[in-house]
Amino acid sequence: MNPIHKVDVAILGAGTAGMAAYRAAAAVTDRVVLIEAEAYGTTCARVGCMPSKLLIAAADAAHGAQHARAFGVDAPDVRVDGARVMERVRAERDRFVGFVVDTVETFPVHHRLLGRATFLDDHRLQVGDPSDGGCVVEARSIVLATGSRSRVLPFLEAAGDRLIVNDDVFDWTELPESVAVFGPGVIGLELGQALHRLGVRVRMFGVGGFVGPLSDPEVRETARSVLNAEFPLLPDATVRHVERVADGVRVTWELDGELRSEVFAHVLAATGRTPNLDRLGLENTTLVLDKRRVPVYDTETMQAGTSHIFLAGDANADLPVLHEAADEGRIAGENAARFPNVLPGQRRSPLSVVFTDPNIAMIGQSWDQVKDRKPIVGRVSFDDQGRARVMRQNRGRLHVYADRVTGRLLGAEMVAPRAEHLAHLLAWSHQQQLTIDQMLAMPFYHPVIEEGLRTALRDASAQLVASQATATQSNSTNR
Amino acid sequence: MNPIHKVDVAILGAGTAGMAAYRAAAAVTDRVVLIEAEAYGTTCARVGCMPSKLLIAAADAAHGAQHARAFGVDAPDVRVDGARVMERVRAERDRFVGFVVDTVETFPVHHRLLGRATFLDDHRLQVGDPSDGGCVVEARSIVLATGSRSRVLPFLEAAGDRLIVNDDVFDWTELPESVAVFGPGVIGLELGQALHRLGVRVRMFGVGGFVGPLSDPEVRETARSVLNAEFPLLPDATVRHVERVADGVRVTWELDGELRSEVFAHVLAATGRTPNLDRLGLENTTLVLDKRRVPVYDTETMQAGTSHIFLAGDANADLPVLHEAADEGRIAGENAARFPNVLPGQRRSPLSVVFTDPNIAMIGQSWDQVKDRKPIVGRVSFDDQGRARVMRQNRGRLHVYADRVTGRLLGAEMVAPRAEHLAHLLAWSHQQQLTIDQMLAMPFYHPVIEEGLRTALRDASAQLVASQATATQSNSTNR
Repeated sequence: MNPIHKVDVAILGAGTAGMAAYRAAAAVTDRVVLIEAEAYGTTCARVGCMPSKLLIAAADAAHGAQHARAFGVDAPDVRVDGARVMERVRAERDRFVGFVVDTVETFPVHHRLLGRATFLDDHRLQVGDPSDGGCVVEARSIVLATGSRSRVLPFLEAAGDRLIVNDDVFDWTELPESVAVFGPGVIGLELGQALHRLGVRVRMFGVGGFVGPLSDPEVRETARSVLNAEFPLLPDATVRHVERVADGVRVTWELDGELRSEVFAHVLAATGRTPNLDRLGLENTTLVLDKRRVPVYDTETMQAGTSHIFLAGDANADLPVLHEAADEGRIAGENAARFPNVLPGQRRSPLSVVFTDPNIAMIGQSWDQVKDRKPIVGRVSFDDQGRARVMRQNRGRLHVYADRVTGRLLGAEMVAPRAEHLAHLLAWSHQQQLTIDQMLAMPFYHPVIEEGLRTALRDASAQLVASQATATQSNSTNR
Repeated sequence: MNPIHKVDVAILGAGTAGMAAYRAAAAVTDRVVLIEAEAYGTTCARVGCMPSKLLIAAADAAHGAQHARAFGVDAPDVRVDGARVMERVRAERDRFVGFVVDTVETFPVHHRLLGRATFLDDHRLQVGDPSDGGCVVEARSIVLATGSRSRVLPFLEAAGDRLIVNDDVFDWTELPESVAVFGPGVIGLELGQALHRLGVRVRMFGVGGFVGPLSDPEVRETARSVLNAEFPLLPDATVRHVERVADGVRVTWELDGELRSEVFAHVLAATGRTPNLDRLGLENTTLVLDKRRVPVYDTETMQAGTSHIFLAGDANADLPVLHEAADEGRIAGENAARFPNVLPGQRRSPLSVVFTDPNIAMIGQSWDQVKDRKPIVGRVSFDDQGRARVMRQNRGRLHVYADRVTGRLLGAEMVAPRAEHLAHLLAWSHQQQLTIDQMLAMPFYHPVIEEGLRTALRDASAQLVASQATATQSNSTNR
């Protein structure tokens, strides 16, 4: 017979969302347990945000040195030392992971449990192997914060031992000669461009023309063209065949009616992520699952249906970015602890960034979300933007969407230099429901990239004036 | 007898402020004249913002290549080709100046006059040489937008032909071996650091410990120490002697009781700027001048006293930055055109940036302006900030000042990576009178430099909670 461990709140997964949920719940009750199936350390620190930014930092250093010539600075003999690049990536990554582990280890021992958790029923979880020291946790409420893992499309399995996912890249001790990247999403674009800049032969394959999360056709086309000028990016090639051959993997694809093939040392699957919910025994609960087998839940309370179970972080397959995971964890933890008193938590305006060069970013509502209300679109191309040209980063495009009647900022999509910063300015303005003209009343220094944003806002403002004049005219006519 | 040209508005100076004043006035009246004494083209484009950012871009390219090693990227043989560096600076500078000249030339010919203007009395200006085609302009109202020039302290005159100001730097066709920079203000710091990074031996001398516009002692000390780690910055050495010698200029200074001397190819005077008001014959007007010989004027209307004369841009010796000059020009032009109906114009929250690496920036009220109200100070050091460390830019410090009672953001000073962007986020928040907690409710992506700002905001927020608890307690005790 297993011992039964009775708690108010059980949290599954000690990643970013789980740690935030733990802190929120532990502020209310001491009867809380944080259950980790594998090792402490977040997706962000181990295989996500941090190691990818480390690889990108090295890539940008190489790219900068190789392109200094146009400024009058000659660096004729730039050489990327793959072993040293990866050494720094791993060492710094380990340091970031270390901080996370240290943090979890400050949580009281009686709040922590190591072992894989499976639902026995709505309230009881088997943790670890029952025949080997495992136990049963009975919880009044439960937070699922089990994260996600890379999803590998079946046709890529043919790459065999040469098939890798992002996690593998950060354990490399050298850089490979070549990589075929499948999936120009956030992970594919960041790693693909970085590896290219570090001298790895890269070719990137996609489906349906998608480039990162962009939904605005003009912005997406600019992104495709800017990135494709640097390395081959085929967002809509049809891959016909993937085959393990003697010296790597042969990929055969069709584009514009022509078949081509190339051999790569590795195939990187960046074709999306899947929530870690499939081995939790959710079938033993009364939860209602959607067609992706994710419990149906409320994004403001994180509650699954009207149940005592909450979903937070990548496990809920929505907004897989760290700051959202942290918010979701906090909301889920608070609601789990005060269940059945469940309250909507404070969410923030949407903000996402792809750390390519130029950055890709989106804030507020996407073009796909706003297009049906026929918003005003303020446009700027960065091809001739003053400061961007000074720094030789004059590539990109930014579109702001504004409500035709109120002039309020609805959203924006962009591929632009320093867009990570522009996106903050825009997301903060969006959260405050500023109008385009209120934004234009703010200070813009000179010469800065933000002046490019101002050009787009002025474009939107002029269209708003014209649109309102037309509306007034047509009102008079109707009268 | 000279012809007399009667207009509603005469604008002196076709720089940034003058062009903005012209546009605003010409929208109201056709009887407007824009008078330029020298050549078209703004201080910004000719010798200010743009060429300095061009020099900095080259300097950062050299610095990046020279420091790529730590990322695992070897560039063993980086060489700065001074001739090519300066060629790009001048070519791009000329392009920016060309745009300005093109713009002025779109203004109708009958609105433009070339020649030096001098007041004959309150309303009449002599333009050009009376004996050589000059004319007299009689104006209902007048905008002074005559800009500023470098001020050279008398003791530097001993450097003779080796004495230069910022204007001269941008006409160089090669880089000199060495430069002694006097004045670690905006211009001195930007040019000094850039020249150092381009391989010029630089030593920078100041007075009274000032580093750029910073007034917060801790932030200033961080700036001194970060910059001084890169090149010798002596913000409070006492310069004893400046002497033209065979191979350049010998500078002798005293620091900590020790005399030292060094010979430099050039001495760069960056010891401030003086408004171009001294050759306008202001003594022939009834304007009241302050002790700097600048007319006393209102910063909201730009009006000098209750007169029909307005001051805009660097000529008023206040806020010598482009976006303020443009706003001032617009306000002055509007008010000049509708004189005597003078209205306060829309000003923006203060924002200033020094484009050193790391950037120096200030927004809202400075420490000097707020210290007497004993604000909450939220602090962050960038020494261990995640993203900054990833990019090896983890140096700097940021302080936010908040009102102890309302929690409102009052201002901020910083020397920090990407501070030009943080400063926009902060200045926009300041203009909207956000509280620290409202700012903390906004989205912060991960991993970004903005998370450093969040650390400072959280520090301020915690102190606000403590301060308000103390206030409540002491209120109860008093009861």
